Amino acid sequence: MSAGPDRRDVPAVAVPRLTLYLRKLRELDGMGVARVSSRDLAAMVGFNAAQIRKDLSYLGEFGTRGVGYEVSRLVDEIERCLGLDRSWSVVIVGAGLLGTALARYRGFAEQGFRLAGIFDTSEVAIGTSYGSGVVQGMDDLESLCRREKVDIGMVTVPAAEAEATVARLCAAGVRAILNFAPVKVHPVDEVLVRQVDLSSELMSLTYHLHRGGD
Amino acid sequence: MSAGPDRRDVPAVAVPRLTLYLRKLRELDGMGVARVSSRDLAAMVGFNAAQIRKDLSYLGEFGTRGVGYEVSRLVDEIERCLGLDRSWSVVIVGAGLLGTALARYRGFAEQGFRLAGIFDTSEVAIGTSYGSGVVQGMDDLESLCRREKVDIGMVTVPAAEAEATVARLCAAGVRAILNFAPVKVHPVDEVLVRQVDLSSELMSLTYHLHRGGD
Repeated sequence: MSAGPDRRDVPAVAVPRLTLYLRKLRELDGMGVARVSSRDLAAMVGFNAAQIRKDLSYLGEFGTRGVGYEVSRLVDEIERCLGLDRSWSVVIVGAGLLGTALARYRGFAEQGFRLAGIFDTSEVAIGTSYGSGVVQGMDDLESLCRREKVDIGMVTVPAAEAEATVARLCAAGVRAILNFAPVKVHPVDEVLVRQVDLSSELMSLTYHLHRGGD
Repeated sequence: MSAGPDRRDVPAVAVPRLTLYLRKLRELDGMGVARVSSRDLAAMVGFNAAQIRKDLSYLGEFGTRGVGYEVSRLVDEIERCLGLDRSWSVVIVGAGLLGTALARYRGFAEQGFRLAGIFDTSEVAIGTSYGSGVVQGMDDLESLCRREKVDIGMVTVPAAEAEATVARLCAAGVRAILNFAPVKVHPVDEVLVRQVDLSSELMSLTYHLHRGGD
């Protein structure tokens, strides 16, 4: 890949906000809205207009004062910035409640994430269909990841199996991990990890509720 | 509630780590392990021993050099610190894929989270059973939240409905929100919000994969 002339560094904290703007802008684009001001967009996504103008300025200079942003162009620019102008291949390892809910979630496909496979160790789970996928045994994990050039692994296995699962995904060439298992994992160098831990989020809430109750 | 003598402030960044230590310590306790060193615990949870000793020092002084921590006591102390020595009442609003997966997840009950109700606007969803809950219509939301003294609302509705849902939960006395809808919500004062946005996590990964590929 070569960097286009409009590719700039976006601060890490701005990336999640860009994803929220993108979602709303796609919705506006789908409704046929041609232009939107930073103020109107601010009201729709819950951030203030100055924040939005600053975040969008990382993408280049294409808002016009008094006229606003061209919606479809802004969608294209944010998608290009976030790497969403191509499709990404994903596997899910762990066909429990969360893994199968993710496999059935149509929103991922709409955003360019293609489910290449869903895997589990359980003989009961193997062969069951979820969305477009049929659960496969773990023996096939590496060969499928290599054949389908899988970019991202979603890990929804129990905590005790997470580290070994991540090691296998890394060895098979997967470049990024979304880890839902409640344990810190250690990928090989260069492999990105993001952690989503629902129980931990809940306990952080109870900690603060509990302290607030003093 | 009154603050016990051993209640100290834990830095916000340490809270998620405490939840991971707790999970492993409960497992050890269940296996009958009486003591654990910070070094062994470190190897099990993936953080280093110095970090663990520091985090646990916020709870008081009860590790002994060369002898380690008493597992069952440490479980009690962390649970008390995180407010997990009591039960918390939870509602889920939005009985889609994610909401129903959460409703069926037994791990929450094991950790003291009691599902008081699951709600949806859809006539098709209302009346369906998930785990211990039957989906109820939104008309009953406020009365149930008040009657059951609901502490926490999990919001798994579409983005466009999230703000109104949060407003209703706040008005009904809910004190904390775990928001899975991909939009920033604005609760009334004093109500805590934590945001879990799976698509946004995925897009953050693609952003970094995309940049890294240059």
